[in-house]
Amino acid sequence: MDKIGIEESIRALSVLRTEGMYLDDFFLTWDKTADEIQAVFAVAEILRGMRTNNISARLFDSGLAISLFRDKSTRTRFSFAGACNLLGLEVQDFEEGKSQVAHGETVRETANMVSFMADVIGIRDDMYVGKGHTYMEEVSAAVKQGFLDGVLEQRPTLVNLQCDIDHPTQSMSDALHLINHFGGTEKLKGKKIAMTWAYSPSYGKPLSVPQGVVGLMTRFGMDVVLAHPKGYGIMPEVEEVARLNAERYGGSFTKTHSMEDAFSGADIVYPKSWAPFEAMGKRTLLYGNGDHAGIDALEKELLSENGRHKEWECTEDMMKKTREGNALYLHCLPADISGVSCDRGEVSAPVFDRFRDSLYKEAGYKPYIIGAMIFVSKVKSPAEKLMQLLWKETPRII
Amino acid sequence: MDKIGIEESIRALSVLRTEGMYLDDFFLTWDKTADEIQAVFAVAEILRGMRTNNISARLFDSGLAISLFRDKSTRTRFSFAGACNLLGLEVQDFEEGKSQVAHGETVRETANMVSFMADVIGIRDDMYVGKGHTYMEEVSAAVKQGFLDGVLEQRPTLVNLQCDIDHPTQSMSDALHLINHFGGTEKLKGKKIAMTWAYSPSYGKPLSVPQGVVGLMTRFGMDVVLAHPKGYGIMPEVEEVARLNAERYGGSFTKTHSMEDAFSGADIVYPKSWAPFEAMGKRTLLYGNGDHAGIDALEKELLSENGRHKEWECTEDMMKKTREGNALYLHCLPADISGVSCDRGEVSAPVFDRFRDSLYKEAGYKPYIIGAMIFVSKVKSPAEKLMQLLWKETPRII
Amino acid sequence: MDKIGIEESIRALSVLRTEGMYLDDFFLTWDKTADEIQAVFAVAEILRGMRTNNISARLFDSGLAISLFRDKSTRTRFSFAGACNLLGLEVQDFEEGKSQVAHGETVRETANMVSFMADVIGIRDDMYVGKGHTYMEEVSAAVKQGFLDGVLEQRPTLVNLQCDIDHPTQSMSDALHLINHFGGTEKLKGKKIAMTWAYSPSYGKPLSVPQGVVGLMTRFGMDVVLAHPKGYGIMPEVEEVARLNAERYGGSFTKTHSMEDAFSGADIVYPKSWAPFEAMGKRTLLYGNGDHAGIDALEKELLSENGRHKEWECTEDMMKKTREGNALYLHCLPADISGVSCDRGEVSAPVFDRFRDSLYKEAGYKPYIIGAMIFVSKVKSPAEKLMQLLWKETPRII
Repeated sequence: MDKIGIEESIRALSVLRTEGMYLDDFFLTWDKTADEIQAVFAVAEILRGMRTNNISARLFDSGLAISLFRDKSTRTRFSFAGACNLLGLEVQDFEEGKSQVAHGETVRETANMVSFMADVIGIRDDMYVGKGHTYMEEVSAAVKQGFLDGVLEQRPTLVNLQCDIDHPTQSMSDALHLINHFGGTEKLKGKKIAMTWAYSPSYGKPLSVPQGVVGLMTRFGMDVVLAHPKGYGIMPEVEEVARLNAERYGGSFTKTHSMEDAFSGADIVYPKSWAPFEAMGKRTLLYGNGDHAGIDALEKELLSENGRHKEWECTEDMMKKTREGNALYLHCLPADISGVSCDRGEVSAPVFDRFRDSLYKEAGYKPYIIGAMIFVSKVKSPAEKLMQLLWKETPRII
Repeated sequence: MDKIGIEESIRALSVLRTEGMYLDDFFLTWDKTADEIQAVFAVAEILRGMRTNNISARLFDSGLAISLFRDKSTRTRFSFAGACNLLGLEVQDFEEGKSQVAHGETVRETANMVSFMADVIGIRDDMYVGKGHTYMEEVSAAVKQGFLDGVLEQRPTLVNLQCDIDHPTQSMSDALHLINHFGGTEKLKGKKIAMTWAYSPSYGKPLSVPQGVVGLMTRFGMDVVLAHPKGYGIMPEVEEVARLNAERYGGSFTKTHSMEDAFSGADIVYPKSWAPFEAMGKRTLLYGNGDHAGIDALEKELLSENGRHKEWECTEDMMKKTREGNALYLHCLPADISGVSCDRGEVSAPVFDRFRDSLYKEAGYKPYIIGAMIFVSKVKSPAEKLMQLLWKETPRII
Repeated sequence: MDKIGIEESIRALSVLRTEGMYLDDFFLTWDKTADEIQAVFAVAEILRGMRTNNISARLFDSGLAISLFRDKSTRTRFSFAGACNLLGLEVQDFEEGKSQVAHGETVRETANMVSFMADVIGIRDDMYVGKGHTYMEEVSAAVKQGFLDGVLEQRPTLVNLQCDIDHPTQSMSDALHLINHFGGTEKLKGKKIAMTWAYSPSYGKPLSVPQGVVGLMTRFGMDVVLAHPKGYGIMPEVEEVARLNAERYGGSFTKTHSMEDAFSGADIVYPKSWAPFEAMGKRTLLYGNGDHAGIDALEKELLSENGRHKEWECTEDMMKKTREGNALYLHCLPADISGVSCDRGEVSAPVFDRFRDSLYKEAGYKPYIIGAMIFVSKVKSPAEKLMQLLWKETPRII
């Protein structure tokens, strides 16, 4: 995309209604309107275009972005850092170990104390079903109140970097990859995407990826198939979101217990391990009660159950069942690759290798998606500001 | 404060003598002249005003700020990061675990090695009586020598982010909160402030807060009362500072062993737990000798002694004893709130809740106080530079 | 150096051929041409001159620099952070503990995932012979491929912050110190430098310093003597590099097992402990096999062998043997100082104290050397860009 292309994209963006996102959080994609979702894609592509053309996208001359990760992370941590840096924000990690949270502070107080200079807060809290999203809502409510009370001079907006319900920065990156791959959002209409469970020798992988994918892809008129062995169901509330989306946007949402059925004629496949929703609920309770014997027993049970479904693997044979044997393979990475990162896993090495570049590009949208989410939450008129930055033409590298 | 108000404040600042702070450290408030203390307040308010008006206060185009925390910290860490970011400095944490300090480097060498590009060093070292301030002086002497010897191209100035003697960024924030609450420094004259011990189920809380408060508030012509149970005395040297201040500035400094007496007729109360100075001196020796049995015994003794003073709690009944029952409640946070963060603590939940906003605002001055301390130590004429930044009017957010 | 001096230096730089360094890594000094080595020195001095004259050297308006340290580090960590900050890059630490590398990601994938916004990657991996350099090459190949495949929008260039073979940021800083001390590169011709082993009560110190020094100093027409007790040999490949350099550049490279011989008539001495190359190879194997008993036995053996060479100490008596008793003492720091950081070590306290300032200055070149390595790898015409920055004259501190 050259400068003229960027200008055109900004003009297209200017007709989308984004006021609802101004000074608001990004928790779940299904909280957002169609315009808002499109605006995030548009801003992401504009930011990417500006960077490719060596035009600085610094919205901020100074400002902090607080990151709070409750789980290990490479991709998301660096994507958040990259996005914030691109816009001129400095990331300050809030590590509970280093801080006084252990000393009994309430979330409300801590949230305000770390936010005096914070424009953005990014949180990843995906470990326990029923906890992550709730925690984010508490933090959001705390800083919103702090802003209203005059404690904070700005309203720090939250970006959900993965919770127990949704993983919007992932699903939006996946979607933007599809949009660019197929040549536009409208081209996704009628495409079949198979979000399917796959075998992994580990257990307890978060549900937010399949949930995020079925909750978002059903908005583009796609035929979304959710496939998993019996007992590996996702959150019922999210299935309901997917059903309603399919109705409203003219696609479909179906479920199957056969990976073959899901792959059959698919344009896109997303084979990925996850833990059963109900088991994760149990685990949260066991952790809450400090029942270590119970946790160990559950882990054994789940691993043994996983082991019964080793045939749920994305092999070249499986890929042949897709539309003209030519489906696009998606994954949030890292994948469990058979014979590479484990004996037997989610995907065979030849399939993974064939899509490596594509997978890396899919991941590469994340910094821009996060940057776009921040951008639309911090300025009233994103199009106007982007045009200003474009015309200013400050080089990123002199 | 609008732009015209900021200009007026800068003009008022310009008549204060601040040359003594240029290229110097900020260790103890009582090292500073009345003009210098006022200048820090003034610059803090100007920086806050500029940020509120979306005017960038970036003094630095590049530069590092080294942070060295020897204790857990949320507030101070983020306040320091926010202040540095506001001025354009990037914080680089010096964590002794990650570095080679463990390999036997001397303070002198390490201080220079981390300071080649450092404009500022912020240190928090409040754990052991007799150690923190001394350590800061060693670091300061090392980098001063490094600068004089041509090893460092700039003189990194130190900000005391809490030592065993003083906690200037806290007490100055407290004071700025009072100044704004009562409508000016001159309005503090004759006000009664009760710095009193309060019960906490933990032990060993640092003395730097009460010491910092009596050492600073006695400079504004206030009637400063220090209250604690017998045996909970603070550093005698700091009491002497408070007595001399009271004489010079026309207020008073008195001591009592009754919380009721201290609260009686007070305009401001600051109930807060701390450890007895003498016990902390003992503890430092025990740690020095690696006498773990001794440390455990001392801890038990101190907790049991604390337990004899549970009535030292800031309740609504106690608050009624203050001037018209209307005193302002201060705390450095986090507070031990009865029934919230502990069974019985420093303050009752209703009192704390009533002052929550006020307490958060009190804390919110800290980034600006730190920013001001840095500003006055890095430029010869703060007023001139601030006027330049104001006129330049670079937006913080485009 | 004033502005006119800087301009002259930039003009001198402009005739050196540096195209080969554009978008390339800095692994080993002997991979680079004479022009390229001189260009790094020149850019380092220009950057230092600009900073001294309060002229900003921000090449980047935004951008990330990834740091990956596999060993504890103070100097190098802060030097890298300072260099990046000077050029406008924000360091993002990649800590394997925090990330998902433990989850079985391959180097290739992780390298790309952390590099979407990365202009530079700095790696220190000096622990195991045969591993560090190889790891850096893997990372480099991964991101180069990522750039060619369109996964990364820029080619992140690597800076070797110390590997098992070379320590170019150290040896280049040492050399720049010599150049400035003696008054120019051409003044180094014919000077005798003694790179000698010295006793230390610790074991397993990396070989990259002596290897880096003999591999680089032989390029300036110096008489380079490598001295160590029998059995403490360095990598044969690097000795070969030194021999070839000496031939090509008209100096000499000799070896001796006598510290006295090495010091005799030397203009520069660099006494420093290191582990025998062969023992380090063994250690790598033992670690690979998880043979803890073997590792312990090797450690004991090496410490006891070290103990047989306590007379390899840089004392004032030894210094008297140098040219007119007036040799310059170098060390990469931290040194094992007899009676200070250990009972008996590499250097006596009087010698160390006499050279303290000089040693600190030697270390102080490192941020500029790193900055220069980054600069020449990110712009096609360093001289042109530096002139642009000089003329722009943005103040570092307003």
